[in-house]
Amino acid sequence: MIQEKIDQAIGILQEKNIDAWMTFGRETATMRDPMLDFIAGMDFTWQTALIITAKGDAIAIVGQYDVANLEARGNYREIIGYVESIREDLRRVLARLDPRQIAVNYSLSSPTADGLSAGMYMNLQEHLAGTPYRERLISAHEVIAALRGRKSPEELRRMKEATRITLEIFNMVTNFIRPGRTEREIADFVLREVENRGLELAWDPDHCPAVFSGPGTAGAHATPTGRTVQPGHLVNMDFGVKYEGYCADLQRTWYLLRPGESAPPAEVQRGFTVLRASIDRTAAALQPGALGKDMDHIARQHLLDNGYAEFPHGLGHQVGREVHDGGGGLFPTWEKYGQTALMPAEAGQVYTIEPRLTLEAYGIVTIEEEVVVQKAGGAMFLSEPQRELWVISGE
Amino acid sequence: MIQEKIDQAIGILQEKNIDAWMTFGRETATMRDPMLDFIAGMDFTWQTALIITAKGDAIAIVGQYDVANLEARGNYREIIGYVESIREDLRRVLARLDPRQIAVNYSLSSPTADGLSAGMYMNLQEHLAGTPYRERLISAHEVIAALRGRKSPEELRRMKEATRITLEIFNMVTNFIRPGRTEREIADFVLREVENRGLELAWDPDHCPAVFSGPGTAGAHATPTGRTVQPGHLVNMDFGVKYEGYCADLQRTWYLLRPGESAPPAEVQRGFTVLRASIDRTAAALQPGALGKDMDHIARQHLLDNGYAEFPHGLGHQVGREVHDGGGGLFPTWEKYGQTALMPAEAGQVYTIEPRLTLEAYGIVTIEEEVVVQKAGGAMFLSEPQRELWVISGE
Repeated sequence: MIQEKIDQAIGILQEKNIDAWMTFGRETATMRDPMLDFIAGMDFTWQTALIITAKGDAIAIVGQYDVANLEARGNYREIIGYVESIREDLRRVLARLDPRQIAVNYSLSSPTADGLSAGMYMNLQEHLAGTPYRERLISAHEVIAALRGRKSPEELRRMKEATRITLEIFNMVTNFIRPGRTEREIADFVLREVENRGLELAWDPDHCPAVFSGPGTAGAHATPTGRTVQPGHLVNMDFGVKYEGYCADLQRTWYLLRPGESAPPAEVQRGFTVLRASIDRTAAALQPGALGKDMDHIARQHLLDNGYAEFPHGLGHQVGREVHDGGGGLFPTWEKYGQTALMPAEAGQVYTIEPRLTLEAYGIVTIEEEVVVQKAGGAMFLSEPQRELWVISGE
Repeated sequence: MIQEKIDQAIGILQEKNIDAWMTFGRETATMRDPMLDFIAGMDFTWQTALIITAKGDAIAIVGQYDVANLEARGNYREIIGYVESIREDLRRVLARLDPRQIAVNYSLSSPTADGLSAGMYMNLQEHLAGTPYRERLISAHEVIAALRGRKSPEELRRMKEATRITLEIFNMVTNFIRPGRTEREIADFVLREVENRGLELAWDPDHCPAVFSGPGTAGAHATPTGRTVQPGHLVNMDFGVKYEGYCADLQRTWYLLRPGESAPPAEVQRGFTVLRASIDRTAAALQPGALGKDMDHIARQHLLDNGYAEFPHGLGHQVGREVHDGGGGLFPTWEKYGQTALMPAEAGQVYTIEPRLTLEAYGIVTIEEEVVVQKAGGAMFLSEPQRELWVISGE
């Protein structure tokens, strides 16, 4: 997989006409540039430069004690070990390659392309002082967005399996929910199931799963509380497992029937139907070249058109090794999303679509699906979508 | 523990005459500023500013969906949630506090004080453009070094327990090693034992434990290989567990007797004795105010004086939540160690002392101990030091 991604990176550098991409870090066990999972698969102790070029070079300059470990993996054709300082080797290698641009891992808007620390960026500028390369540092944003976004068949296989297992656990929760259970109990049931299967969570256990229920609930990203689920309440769960390094991220909504009800009230049903349609409209329009802001607008406007409030977040983000995998997103053009709302979609990218709406008397309706962008357009759902509200008997 | 550390930070800001310390991050599950474990204990999705001041303020500006989770923890007296952008709230809060300096988490030499990413530093500069605060950003290096370095009694208790368990596993390895076992088998034995106890490793399983044996071995930080341990060889292991978030990091050396030997050869014994003495000399000299470079020199010079080569690394680093816990270290003044070799030791800091020497025909002799700096001087070993070579019968 590492070799596959290094080869893919070389192709992306050629396509984008960027001579070199350099991942620069140290003590990566303390703070790990997320790109290391793609191009190294190991941690480094001392200042380390992993240089990939459009010409096909893969060169590593590492502390002497990291040489053997990296060599054993066989992904870098040239490995240079140093003892006291990386500076001279780094300057020598760059002078030999003489790249017109050196893309490094900083980005204002994409966390997964921002693995270079501020102090290491300053170190790099010092190392290159007096050389032309100091002024040739550019953001690797584009390179990383393409490399992370365009999933290989093997990556897609893992992601499908992650969503399949996640939905399997959602189905178990349907049997577990009943009036009087607390959000915390439901979350703990899920955590036990994940542990029993020897799997990892896709994000922080504080809110994976997030379980939120009834009117006036805290909503996603909050820790599940001792609040009990009640007849007439909506219950939502935001949850995903990680499978072989790749994340799932799905949301589903249940409704607890009140005594005498055989189906959700019309108001609840209508909310679900409108929300569902906003997802399907977006998925149908999502194709290579589509802009995230326009996709976000489709769902957002559909809710507004039907008399619901806008959701206070972006419509969807990419998923991969990280649950929020960076690069372009299906976001509105709010300041906090930076340029990511304006990046065109590419075939092979996986996005969530996760609108929400609030029904004051019942709670929140949420559905979150994952879709993969198809070359021919019309995004494909990664797993079975939620087509109906999931109904729990209130007895 | 979070509250304890926030209160300690306020005292450190007063002591160092710094008005405010701001931890600034986003998507911290992707790349986590290591200081969040001390002052938050949770992850944040959107741009987040955690501001602690010398006057005793603890203010958090976070994305709206992170508010409930942070509130539930009760460590921040003022929590501000935003939807579209952090900028206005951040400018407003800073204008109100009007700090003369704002320490932020970048550092050229200390990875644990370098949790701010390059892109987020640029974002911060943009947010503060046109205000006086843009020019008041300074490195939080000193604040973080003190906060991480000065262990509380609870932190020391956890660290002692981590070393105790680690030594217990080292002792089990003594019974497991015999001629013909491979480095990999020994490492796997350790990994199984850690798993059976439900513990985490202190660092990357690729080289935790590192097991290296015999002449011409790859040395620490390398993955254990299929090389078999043999009579007449030295075997070394570098290993530690994490206990309640705190790391241990120890090394021990075994010698496998050759047929007819009842003790290691004089040459091996002499190497061990010289190495041992270099540690004890350093520990005796290590006191508040001592400089790392001088401590490194004591051990390095002792080896040189006895006819051995210098070790190609620093003598020791701090340990805590991270196995390489940053701040000052017992390092030579090599470029890659930056300013960390010149930071005076403080009471309550925990350092490793880990010299090594090579005996061409046998392998490497290593001992790594952990010591805590005492107010009265004379560092105290955190666990039982290795006073004798550990000898394995060669039969």
